[in-house]
Amino acid sequence: MNNLELASIDDRFTEHSSMVYRDEHHQLKILLHVTREISKEIQLDRLLLIIMNEVRKALKADRCTVFLLDEDKNELWSKVAHGEKEIRFSKQLGVAGYVAKTGEILNISDAYSDSRFNQEIDRKTGYRTLNMLTYPMTNKRNEIIGVFQVLNKYSGNFSEQDEELLAAISWIAAAQIENAQLYEQQRQAFNSFVETLANTIDARDPLTAGHSKRIELYSNEVAQIIDLPPQRQELLRYAALLHDYGKISLSDAVLKNSGGLSEEEYSQMRSHPAITRSLLETIYLPKNLKELPIIAGAHHEKVDGSGYPEGLKFEQIPFEARLLAVVDAFDAMTSSRRYSDRIIDFEKVVRTLEEDSGSHFDPYFVEAFKKITLDRLVAILEYEVQHLIEPEDAALLAHFTINDLLRALRSEQKNPVTAGEGDFVAIFQKYYHREHLENEPQTSEHS
Amino acid sequence: MNNLELASIDDRFTEHSSMVYRDEHHQLKILLHVTREISKEIQLDRLLLIIMNEVRKALKADRCTVFLLDEDKNELWSKVAHGEKEIRFSKQLGVAGYVAKTGEILNISDAYSDSRFNQEIDRKTGYRTLNMLTYPMTNKRNEIIGVFQVLNKYSGNFSEQDEELLAAISWIAAAQIENAQLYEQQRQAFNSFVETLANTIDARDPLTAGHSKRIELYSNEVAQIIDLPPQRQELLRYAALLHDYGKISLSDAVLKNSGGLSEEEYSQMRSHPAITRSLLETIYLPKNLKELPIIAGAHHEKVDGSGYPEGLKFEQIPFEARLLAVVDAFDAMTSSRRYSDRIIDFEKVVRTLEEDSGSHFDPYFVEAFKKITLDRLVAILEYEVQHLIEPEDAALLAHFTINDLLRALRSEQKNPVTAGEGDFVAIFQKYYHREHLENEPQTSEHS
Repeated sequence: MNNLELASIDDRFTEHSSMVYRDEHHQLKILLHVTREISKEIQLDRLLLIIMNEVRKALKADRCTVFLLDEDKNELWSKVAHGEKEIRFSKQLGVAGYVAKTGEILNISDAYSDSRFNQEIDRKTGYRTLNMLTYPMTNKRNEIIGVFQVLNKYSGNFSEQDEELLAAISWIAAAQIENAQLYEQQRQAFNSFVETLANTIDARDPLTAGHSKRIELYSNEVAQIIDLPPQRQELLRYAALLHDYGKISLSDAVLKNSGGLSEEEYSQMRSHPAITRSLLETIYLPKNLKELPIIAGAHHEKVDGSGYPEGLKFEQIPFEARLLAVVDAFDAMTSSRRYSDRIIDFEKVVRTLEEDSGSHFDPYFVEAFKKITLDRLVAILEYEVQHLIEPEDAALLAHFTINDLLRALRSEQKNPVTAGEGDFVAIFQKYYHREHLENEPQTSEHS
Repeated sequence: MNNLELASIDDRFTEHSSMVYRDEHHQLKILLHVTREISKEIQLDRLLLIIMNEVRKALKADRCTVFLLDEDKNELWSKVAHGEKEIRFSKQLGVAGYVAKTGEILNISDAYSDSRFNQEIDRKTGYRTLNMLTYPMTNKRNEIIGVFQVLNKYSGNFSEQDEELLAAISWIAAAQIENAQLYEQQRQAFNSFVETLANTIDARDPLTAGHSKRIELYSNEVAQIIDLPPQRQELLRYAALLHDYGKISLSDAVLKNSGGLSEEEYSQMRSHPAITRSLLETIYLPKNLKELPIIAGAHHEKVDGSGYPEGLKFEQIPFEARLLAVVDAFDAMTSSRRYSDRIIDFEKVVRTLEEDSGSHFDPYFVEAFKKITLDRLVAILEYEVQHLIEPEDAALLAHFTINDLLRALRSEQKNPVTAGEGDFVAIFQKYYHREHLENEPQTSEHS
């Protein structure tokens, strides 16, 4: 719209009374406010929440849900609708489905008298739908990308003015939703690329298969325990996945040789964190991941300064790198070729971490690590055959931490354990020593 | 703002005349229009253009520039300002610098009488600044992220109303600019990750170093020649960079052995396109890149069906994969260890492509490839030492294509070449046979 057009719109109103202006003016103010709120957010989940809430308030109604069209599956879905979980249904179903298919606006004053209304949902949720305005959301290419469903106006039915207001909001909401979807796709692409790559590098050596993924999962547990801020959690996650990225340029002779390396090969092996760092430094990273190269490159530093590549001491080592050092060592001692037993006793593994606490490891992270609950520990240890973990076992293990397990294991050496303690210890050991795999070799082979 | 707040704002206007409503109403309409236009765009460059144009129109002024703050460099920059190229200057300079530093709004009615105004720019551009409104752009955390500079109002000076309108636009523009920056960062992260990775995989074998990057550059030339739509160009670009991704899981014995492979090793080598495909299939890709795995995985198919992994024929092979096959073969014949001469004569290389046209290659792409201009060809052949190409040579080579070169080379075999033709042939051969490297070995070593 250019200035001339705007002027002509304005002229049309000159003859009208201030009342018309007041109404229009009010609508415009609302619309502007909604627009501002919508512009603020680019994360899809949060954006949808804002849109639903703003539309509900603007139309003075009890509920608003935005259903988006999933073209691949021919379904409508809504991730977050006032506290409920994700809803998904066929594009063919209900009033929303009708509107998504036809592009018609449906303003229904008595839901229960309309045959397209699916009473099933009210019956399940205990909610009582009276009137509803269902509106198609179209993008700039005029394709229907979703549907607004506004329920139960505070007083009376939805008016023509409500429809007009929703038309204007819909326009801006659709634009911002498409922006958010583009952003989300890019984020997911980056993320899944990193995951696949980490996986591929680990797979070059069967002894380390799945290592980076497990490191990521252990790190995430510790991050929860120490209450790391979400932004740092994302950074930690990528540092965990990519800490061994430098191994991509090691030769097979070095990478697959677990003993008997020549001096030169050994020094090549020790160069991998530095390579990780310099490779990651060539990548353009989003602002919140700028520290990724330093963190990922420092996972072999030791707090007493005897690590590599730089021989950094304590606080000189990045916080998240000290965390990685602990979980990296733990996984090295507890991972194994599939179907072969773990060789080192669990108690001895943790004892090693404890003994090296203060020299190799930052004690803070060794202690935090020991607070991981056993259900999570087993899920990560057995990540590739997780589906073979019995739900009852997991439920029981969730009540105990590594600390609890250590207490039981260590007291066992002196006194007999109580029955209750004994149960969870035995269940843990069954998974730790992979006895659960013995019964179902076929299933695990296909996992 | 909730409904009550909106109502109270509205109440405040009840006493006013319709005139006040008319003015406010007009401003709101403009603001709403600007907001809509801004919401549509998530690509930063295009978004900035829209913002500048909309602000200019809304404030009835001759020019508007948005300068964004580059915190790393402490500079203000504007990528696109009504046709000019990127402008960059220190945050300390001029009126824009002053506003970015202090957060003050500067409404200057006579630019030339204000000491902060930098007359240098007018002198360079030939533009005459009369009055100007310079306004800080702040984000939701109240940080200054840039500056609006609006020049030369059509009539009179910038008013208080202009400032108010700009305040409201600024708010929404800042939100959308930050969204666009987030999106841009994610896109760049994905892109540079892919580049680094391709590079790393090529580097495992010195014989293929830089291969994927060159394939990308050749593909891009052919894409320009055949006028491939921009969306497909992006897809082609990633397919080119990642076509050898599957080599990541080949063993050194296979990868670094250029002859004498055992049968099993040979079949491993031939498995790499299929691995490329299946690895890429595990990655979540943005919508426009969904075909990436199929295209990248089919670069060793031949149009007569004798290729691998699937033995597809002609149209069964994706369009872009047929393009990749040509440039992949060309690079294999013309790349070499650095400092060593290219072994196969250029004419013979192209002859091979021509002879295999219709059996191995799609003739369409062989013909398109031959339309590449020689300056681009040399720049890609010598990608790693590009800086050693003489600008005069490049300027001359830009007038000739591979076809021209072939005509000259082939007629040479029968008749003596003309002087004009001889020049460009000799210059091309100097680069093709890397004679330009002989004089400056040190420089090239550091490149």
